[in-house]
Amino acid sequence: MFISIDGGDGCGKSTQMELLHRWLRDRGCDVVLCRDPGSTPLAEHIRDILLHGTTLEIVPTAEMLLFMAARAQMVAEVVRPALDAGNVVLCDRFLLATIVYQGYAGGVPLDAILDVGKIATQGVLPDVGIVLDIPREIAVRRMEHRGVPDRMEGKGEAYHERVRNGFLVHAAAEPQRYVVVDATGSIEEVAATIRAVISQKQPLDMRLTCV
Amino acid sequence: MFISIDGGDGCGKSTQMELLHRWLRDRGCDVVLCRDPGSTPLAEHIRDILLHGTTLEIVPTAEMLLFMAARAQMVAEVVRPALDAGNVVLCDRFLLATIVYQGYAGGVPLDAILDVGKIATQGVLPDVGIVLDIPREIAVRRMEHRGVPDRMEGKGEAYHERVRNGFLVHAAAEPQRYVVVDATGSIEEVAATIRAVISQKQPLDMRLTCV
Repeated sequence: MFISIDGGDGCGKSTQMELLHRWLRDRGCDVVLCRDPGSTPLAEHIRDILLHGTTLEIVPTAEMLLFMAARAQMVAEVVRPALDAGNVVLCDRFLLATIVYQGYAGGVPLDAILDVGKIATQGVLPDVGIVLDIPREIAVRRMEHRGVPDRMEGKGEAYHERVRNGFLVHAAAEPQRYVVVDATGSIEEVAATIRAVISQKQPLDMRLTCV
Repeated sequence: MFISIDGGDGCGKSTQMELLHRWLRDRGCDVVLCRDPGSTPLAEHIRDILLHGTTLEIVPTAEMLLFMAARAQMVAEVVRPALDAGNVVLCDRFLLATIVYQGYAGGVPLDAILDVGKIATQGVLPDVGIVLDIPREIAVRRMEHRGVPDRMEGKGEAYHERVRNGFLVHAAAEPQRYVVVDATGSIEEVAATIRAVISQKQPLDMRLTCV
């Protein structure tokens, strides 16, 4: 089973990744954690360029292609082998992030992203994509104590509003894959909702590997 | 006018780029030189990964997407502005190299490369693509005095035979764009053939900018 967790910055993604990871492990699942972009030497290198290369000029199409290159490497080197070995893959962001950040918010045509996405992922897509949704003002308040924003975080309020809206619109367009979870509640409330979503979507063969 | 020069390693590309550049300049053209991957800070960074990252595992699809990301940035930042300003752009390699190295020789489906190529280049393609063709054994002899081969050069003989064949097959498939030039002759003979090809393909409006 391939699970991704996504959402705008400050939605509580890292915390919920950790809690879900622990819950899956406690149920006996072999979980492979990954983050997109990242999880392979090449993709971590690309991640550095994308998130910390604040002085590099990167046009939206090149940005999209870099995210896809990192993703292609991660799918081939980590995700597909882990799924083939019967593991649960739990991934911090995936294709939906590019659809939303570079497409809905960044202006790259969605058709182009979906076409390149098919090539980069080789059709390996999440069985469940959790989308943590939170109003931007709450997210901003939650991030107040963080350090300097990275290249994507520093793109301004209008951009981040388009990000939130993009997540909601695209999740609604692919309801069999993406589930929007209200992330304004307490950590435990959100975690419980995510567990309920996973339990409900869980395919039969997962029950065999995860006791 | 957008001119690219391509061909297998050891075909004499750098020498012919230099001679063609000088000839165009002598005729009064404003020439913008570029190399693909490269010519912008982002693309030069990607070039380092692709050509010198010998210890990084890079799957063919990720490799293709990285070349395309570099190309997208170069087209947006260098090639299109130069063409819009009426310059002649002379580029060391372009899309054809990815079609041949990653497609014909590397096994990435051609359809995928052509689809991503349309997105990366935004339809900016060479008016003339010179393909320097040379039997592999002559190329190897010419490169004997070079240093350590880079990541692409070090891919083995069978790969480089597929590269040569790919250039010939794909150039034949797009004869209005690509012209194969026999590169086994002397430097001056090859340069004269290239000048003849350019003169013949030269559009009328180029005669206005290049006296």
